[in-house]
Amino acid sequence: MKKHNFSAGPSILPSYTLENASKAVAGWEPAGGLSLIEISHRSKEFVAVVDEATQLIKELLNVPSGYSVLFLQGGASTQFCMVPYNLLDNNQTAAYLDTGAWANKSIKEAKLFGNVNVVGSSKGDNYNFIPKGYSLANDLAYFHITTNNTIYGTEIKEDLDVNVPLVADMSSDIFSRPVDVSKYALIYAGAQKNLGPAGVTLAIVKDDILGKVDRQIPTMLNYQTHIDKESMFNTPPVFAIYASYLTLKWLKEQGGLGEMQKRNQAKAELLYNEIDSNPLFEGTAAVEDRSLMNVTFVMKNPDLETEFMAYATEQGISGIKGHRSVGGFRASIYNAMPIESVQVLTTAMNVFAEKHVAVNS
Amino acid sequence: MKKHNFSAGPSILPSYTLENASKAVAGWEPAGGLSLIEISHRSKEFVAVVDEATQLIKELLNVPSGYSVLFLQGGASTQFCMVPYNLLDNNQTAAYLDTGAWANKSIKEAKLFGNVNVVGSSKGDNYNFIPKGYSLANDLAYFHITTNNTIYGTEIKEDLDVNVPLVADMSSDIFSRPVDVSKYALIYAGAQKNLGPAGVTLAIVKDDILGKVDRQIPTMLNYQTHIDKESMFNTPPVFAIYASYLTLKWLKEQGGLGEMQKRNQAKAELLYNEIDSNPLFEGTAAVEDRSLMNVTFVMKNPDLETEFMAYATEQGISGIKGHRSVGGFRASIYNAMPIESVQVLTTAMNVFAEKHVAVNS
Repeated sequence: MKKHNFSAGPSILPSYTLENASKAVAGWEPAGGLSLIEISHRSKEFVAVVDEATQLIKELLNVPSGYSVLFLQGGASTQFCMVPYNLLDNNQTAAYLDTGAWANKSIKEAKLFGNVNVVGSSKGDNYNFIPKGYSLANDLAYFHITTNNTIYGTEIKEDLDVNVPLVADMSSDIFSRPVDVSKYALIYAGAQKNLGPAGVTLAIVKDDILGKVDRQIPTMLNYQTHIDKESMFNTPPVFAIYASYLTLKWLKEQGGLGEMQKRNQAKAELLYNEIDSNPLFEGTAAVEDRSLMNVTFVMKNPDLETEFMAYATEQGISGIKGHRSVGGFRASIYNAMPIESVQVLTTAMNVFAEKHVAVNS
Repeated sequence: MKKHNFSAGPSILPSYTLENASKAVAGWEPAGGLSLIEISHRSKEFVAVVDEATQLIKELLNVPSGYSVLFLQGGASTQFCMVPYNLLDNNQTAAYLDTGAWANKSIKEAKLFGNVNVVGSSKGDNYNFIPKGYSLANDLAYFHITTNNTIYGTEIKEDLDVNVPLVADMSSDIFSRPVDVSKYALIYAGAQKNLGPAGVTLAIVKDDILGKVDRQIPTMLNYQTHIDKESMFNTPPVFAIYASYLTLKWLKEQGGLGEMQKRNQAKAELLYNEIDSNPLFEGTAAVEDRSLMNVTFVMKNPDLETEFMAYATEQGISGIKGHRSVGGFRASIYNAMPIESVQVLTTAMNVFAEKHVAVNS
């Protein structure tokens, strides 16, 4: 039976990526049949992959000049400390928006380096909305946001206009829509949602924000190191970069980020409409802040959740168990998820509701 | 034509690893046919991989109790700062042995955190030997060594007995011989030589060396974080860990590290014997410190090197160009390199010498 992979991450990737990444591990044509993972990262063949991947990112996101595209390691969690290490001096203040567990972790790390001003938080409402109406002092080192909150199903779906350097953790919605990169000082993202496998972290850094803090920065934690060496200061995560490169090629082939946004909106609309019209289900996030990537919902009667989960599993639906802090269900519908799989889910919800209503009538 | 892959790293891996890693990317049986790289790292199937890989490492290296085995990111280069971040207080001193470019980089990072005493260096002789005869003060935070120096072809082939905590970068010779882990406080290694693909870093940490420095350590740079969460604090590099797990299974299947050491000694002996007996070639490293992993050699008449390289390439030999700082050739003969490939190289050297002598006589 076909599986419909709604996993929150690592998550569904295009079959183009999976098939070609698999082939390259068995034997990579540009390396004369040696495996991609057993050749030098400084071979001209692999350097070409890094170069092309960088160009594709610049093209897809329309990255302006003055920005560097980096492939790093350690996930967004490492960026939580790299950002303040590079950008927040001991006596400076950075503003953070507290929109969930990951935002919280980034706040914790920043406090090791300077002052942190949490300008808004939805913690009191289990992070079911994006705080708004805050103001930002002009002398902030930066303002940090988490654009998509996978656990709670909320998303900042537009580029914010702010008066200080804007730093965004876009781990779970990068490449899902066109972004005006010029509005950001730094964007970072773990790859394992819309880009590639776990093991590579993308950073897009505005060059002129660096070099302004007084502290000494360890070499590997210094963005400048990786800019100077074009992500090749040390051995990069070859496989994860190659698989990401394949996804970037696929993204371009599909029509780019405008087309992705259209598809993502259509998928999300289909699923949210079912949630809103189905008598058994309800969404957990504030309507205006609903994520196009992670759709969180519960059953009005929680006693039915086990039964629905079993029924969904029978339909080939996998990965929809909600995070323990929200409960219920979470359907992650990243770029690579076809609308047909979302239809399988909405049909399952619909049929289940009909059956349940029939049973109870 | 069969290729003989003498690349210094990323380097040859067992075909068992390549074939099964390739298959898992296309579709992984334990995940019901979903790809290994598109499922949750917290799925019981992948957690089992991490657990089994950890157990295999403990078994192969006979790791005593009181040590933790960690899968990290960022390569040995990130360990260069993590080690002093966790182990060297501002007012303390660590000793370092300067055996090459990588040792040098580790020294540079340590200086950001405390005092560094370089107790021996072979820099003046282009690192062609391992310094000996140094003494270590009893109050050192630790003594750091690089057991194998890929560029220069030197290796510390036995476990040192020292009076302070011993920290070893074993990136390029781990799993090539049995190691007495109890003699070390911390062992780390980038995976991309004898273990797996680039993108995962192994650390074996003696638990009781941690928690002794006064500074606050960023979460991701703190070994304790990864010990507490069994390498799952954040999304680990799934593919690189899985491929490493396959290599560990292969290592056990082959007979473990005693068998590996025997094979590695036989391969190295074959190649060094050819170098020593061939009239055209000579080794670059001090005989007693010759590496079993990276065999560095030059031609007595450097004008012949281009011709020999062309001839070797015709025989399917790849990756033997020496590092620019040593010149000549470097044949890396890691665990996965069969002796048959080394024979192809020694035969090529032999035939080339005969041809050259014949031409000149």
